[in-house]
Amino acid sequence: MNPQQIANKCAALMWADDHAARGLGVEVVSVGPGTATVRMTVRQDMVNVHGTCHGGFIFAIADVGFGYACNSENFRTVGGSADIDFVAPAHLDDVLTATGKRRHQGGRAGVYDIEVHNQQDKLIALFRGKTVRIKGHFFDPA
Amino acid sequence: MNPQQIANKCAALMWADDHAARGLGVEVVSVGPGTATVRMTVRQDMVNVHGTCHGGFIFAIADVGFGYACNSENFRTVGGSADIDFVAPAHLDDVLTATGKRRHQGGRAGVYDIEVHNQQDKLIALFRGKTVRIKGHFFDPA
Amino acid sequence: MNPQQIANKCAALMWADDHAARGLGVEVVSVGPGTATVRMTVRQDMVNVHGTCHGGFIFAIADVGFGYACNSENFRTVGGSADIDFVAPAHLDDVLTATGKRRHQGGRAGVYDIEVHNQQDKLIALFRGKTVRIKGHFFDPA
Amino acid sequence: MNPQQIANKCAALMWADDHAARGLGVEVVSVGPGTATVRMTVRQDMVNVHGTCHGGFIFAIADVGFGYACNSENFRTVGGSADIDFVAPAHLDDVLTATGKRRHQGGRAGVYDIEVHNQQDKLIALFRGKTVRIKGHFFDPA
Repeated sequence: MNPQQIANKCAALMWADDHAARGLGVEVVSVGPGTATVRMTVRQDMVNVHGTCHGGFIFAIADVGFGYACNSENFRTVGGSADIDFVAPAHLDDVLTATGKRRHQGGRAGVYDIEVHNQQDKLIALFRGKTVRIKGHFFDPA
Repeated sequence: MNPQQIANKCAALMWADDHAARGLGVEVVSVGPGTATVRMTVRQDMVNVHGTCHGGFIFAIADVGFGYACNSENFRTVGGSADIDFVAPAHLDDVLTATGKRRHQGGRAGVYDIEVHNQQDKLIALFRGKTVRIKGHFFDPA
Repeated sequence: MNPQQIANKCAALMWADDHAARGLGVEVVSVGPGTATVRMTVRQDMVNVHGTCHGGFIFAIADVGFGYACNSENFRTVGGSADIDFVAPAHLDDVLTATGKRRHQGGRAGVYDIEVHNQQDKLIALFRGKTVRIKGHFFDPA
Repeated sequence: MNPQQIANKCAALMWADDHAARGLGVEVVSVGPGTATVRMTVRQDMVNVHGTCHGGFIFAIADVGFGYACNSENFRTVGGSADIDFVAPAHLDDVLTATGKRRHQGGRAGVYDIEVHNQQDKLIALFRGKTVRIKGHFFDPA
């Protein structure tokens, strides 16, 4: 299997058990080695008191993209920490696309940058996530 | 009105329009000037591929606590950025309590620390959120 | 004046009073609108107990690059917060180059990414800085 | 040896090789298990173009406190990442005190909070550092 095929297989295996991403209405648009693009529409139950998408759900779509990007090479990997900057509000019915890519991998620790844009390609948030590889694979690498 | 009464009134006005917190099944346990405690149970639709609560929902409950804490003094306030450290996993049916308090307020910018614990008082995440006061109040201060 | 000339003039005016950058032995390699490249050699007095460059000085060279990048358009700007990931150690006599660029500018707030590499182009640190524009200019814009 | 004696011995062994802290003019005021207090005076060569202490040096004193706090239990530990919020400026001749304490230790990873105050006990910066334990001790634990 080549790296793209490995990424596709990891994503398919993750998706099968990914209750959280399904519940958020996420679509996994594409994955590759160290990268992912995912999409989510802002629903009524994601809107906060200011009339805009709650920061938790902007974080969530970024975090889903992060998860598919960092688990794309058949090493089980979890997020250890993350920073997010909310640079513009998102609103009801906006379509948010999170695009993630690896910036660094050193031993068990990695750093990924994820950007969230709306349907007009306006930047909504910048997210930086740090990963730790745990034991195990999604499928037998042999 | 004293500061506690102001905090209670802000929280009640926020809650009326807080689709996001309601959708997450959040309970606002208490608020005070610059503080808040909120609670959420980890549902099936918050669980990720690793069998644990998706980081996005741990962030979300912290962010809800942050929102009630930073909007407790009748100045409309939004989160500008946040950092989260995931220090232990949360699981299905865990009850997560987020407790937030202000660390600093300077002009329009503030810093809040929120801790998330599970039902056994085990620390799950440390969250630090940065706020910006926008224009407006929840109710007429006069 | 075009944007490049404005950036050069801001950098020259900053440098005249920049005791901190001079004391660190920094060289400002280049600036442009929203960008900067600066360089510093790791001295004996920057080395810590582990025999490697103290994190404070890796942060410092990134922060100097951040400062020149975010002050390149003749709006006086200060750093409000920053995050740094130390991804590889730096050693005595290493030459560290920090390259910064703006990721977002919205009203008074901006986000900049700075990378620090050593003389072998190995990534040493990833830095993300958030800015606030204060009042004033480096020179009369008229 | 009790925990306080271990902390004192680690700090003494660190200090002997800590060129960076000495060069910054740092005084290690006290250490304990998971805690440290350090102090530094803002010198002319730490002042930036805005007439205030360069953020790199505010970070540096926080980072020194972080280093003594996280290396206080005879496990060699390095900083993996850090976030800092600059909440008020520091000026020439200000005496900055950084006080650090552990918030969490889980296996090899830890989280520490460090506050920097000036001589009037005004909060200057909030710093959160994340650690990784590497191999080795400062002295034979047996």
